[in-house]
Amino acid sequence: MEILFTFIPKEDQQQRLEAEFPQVDFHFLYKDKTRLASADIIVTYGEDLTAEDIAAAEKVQWIMVASAGIEKLPHQAIAEREITVSNVKGIHKIPMAESVLAHLLSLKRSLPAIYENQRSRDWNRKIRSSELHGSTAIILGPGAIGSEIGRLLQAFGVRTIGCNRSGKQALHMDEMVSFEHILEKLPQADYVLSILPSTHETKQLLTSTHFKAMKNTAIFMNFGRGDLVSDAVLLEALQSEEIAYAVLDVFELEPLPTEHPYWTMDNVVVSPHVSSHSGKYVERALDIFIPNLKKWLADQTIPANLVNMEKGY
Amino acid sequence: MEILFTFIPKEDQQQRLEAEFPQVDFHFLYKDKTRLASADIIVTYGEDLTAEDIAAAEKVQWIMVASAGIEKLPHQAIAEREITVSNVKGIHKIPMAESVLAHLLSLKRSLPAIYENQRSRDWNRKIRSSELHGSTAIILGPGAIGSEIGRLLQAFGVRTIGCNRSGKQALHMDEMVSFEHILEKLPQADYVLSILPSTHETKQLLTSTHFKAMKNTAIFMNFGRGDLVSDAVLLEALQSEEIAYAVLDVFELEPLPTEHPYWTMDNVVVSPHVSSHSGKYVERALDIFIPNLKKWLADQTIPANLVNMEKGY
Repeated sequence: MEILFTFIPKEDQQQRLEAEFPQVDFHFLYKDKTRLASADIIVTYGEDLTAEDIAAAEKVQWIMVASAGIEKLPHQAIAEREITVSNVKGIHKIPMAESVLAHLLSLKRSLPAIYENQRSRDWNRKIRSSELHGSTAIILGPGAIGSEIGRLLQAFGVRTIGCNRSGKQALHMDEMVSFEHILEKLPQADYVLSILPSTHETKQLLTSTHFKAMKNTAIFMNFGRGDLVSDAVLLEALQSEEIAYAVLDVFELEPLPTEHPYWTMDNVVVSPHVSSHSGKYVERALDIFIPNLKKWLADQTIPANLVNMEKGY
Repeated sequence: MEILFTFIPKEDQQQRLEAEFPQVDFHFLYKDKTRLASADIIVTYGEDLTAEDIAAAEKVQWIMVASAGIEKLPHQAIAEREITVSNVKGIHKIPMAESVLAHLLSLKRSLPAIYENQRSRDWNRKIRSSELHGSTAIILGPGAIGSEIGRLLQAFGVRTIGCNRSGKQALHMDEMVSFEHILEKLPQADYVLSILPSTHETKQLLTSTHFKAMKNTAIFMNFGRGDLVSDAVLLEALQSEEIAYAVLDVFELEPLPTEHPYWTMDNVVVSPHVSSHSGKYVERALDIFIPNLKKWLADQTIPANLVNMEKGY
């Protein structure tokens, strides 16, 4: 049994794996594909495998993606071979929810202005801060991460409106609306947050009509995938002040090109796709991988966090 | 009946008062003391009255302080005349708790670095973010504001240790410790937050021994009063890296002098005493003042939020 990691866990994490599975031959190789042919299982962040790699990995039966997004995997090549794919859905919820709340609270409590005034030694108390308390948020994609965001927002006294395909109830949402009816709810929202994955249904889901329906004071936050809205639509909404602010962790094109207008806009925060980062990330991924691997080795039980390559999540 | 406001509420707030109390003669005068002699009640932010003003205000029976801190009032002059003093304790809890969480989350989720990298168009994903989740906070002063901070920290999965004079249980604290025994708990804390008022007991409460007992990774946040710790002690702790960070909303001397080292230190955030600011502030102060005034006019009932001028809070 050979398992190829296409990234390098810390020394103690490698030891943890080797101690738990003495019968397994682990290879930890970053940007080195020499072990593809003999790998039975591949553990990857999901951004480094091509259709050719899948062809080369002729023995592989399970790809474990240590990430939530699988849109960069070669879907067809994997589906044809009926390779099992699992992800680490759920481990992002704590750091991502904390990032969303950090950005939102920072704007409401004037932290960018406070930091800037400190740089110029300016004791400026004429700062107009406001509160999360008593406001309303629409959460596009109230799944594991979205519900955790909802739970925290509710603790701050924010009304939460979840928005998904069906409009069916989700955790920690005061109200629900379907994608189809979101236009009716947008005028109520102080914040519109997305953590939607990239699927054929979510691509360009938000159009200029949606931004026109939002409050002029609304904060739009995209922490899902950059193809939810085109740059053209979002730039227009920001430049014509249809909304007040955008906090973006994901972009149509990543890395965001140096000449992109977002970098210098006063009403945009550019976060370089780091909202799920955490010192605890790989540790938590292993907490999911290890029990799955034990069962797989025992009786080829299909792992938890199975991904449906056709649905895309 | 004459009531003197030493600050100017918004037009609609003035109208609200005049409509509720047609029998009262309101004066809204900023930095203008010509009406002191005839005022029965004074409403002030608590920073603009001297012992001479109290002598001049010969009719005054009640001073309503639209703030939490009363340390700048002329205590002796007020106590001698047995003037009733009330404050607006409680109305700061939402904005202040949101400010504390904003600053804490901002540091944990690397917002200062994200903002700085944006200014140089730097798509830098090598950002070391960490989480509130699973950490421990000591809260000095678990009263109305401190408990609200505790409630929110607990929602983020933070263990809360309240610290007050008696060590008696306070709301939303997993554990309590008295001032006397705080040294024993400091080594456990990832954050040490103070919202203590300024009293003879809290002045210089924290000494270099306390900072030496804290983790090197600890974040110290002072949102109470600047005399809790001397600049000399705190500077030494920061410069010798006994703690990792200080977020200060209050200072020994305010405004913080332009030449003060805090302004340029990498491990200090200078917030110019704005953590309680909110667009809802005066409205909430009136929500406390109006029912109190109704009762006072009806039967001279002592207002809620009474302040004990001897204890200092």
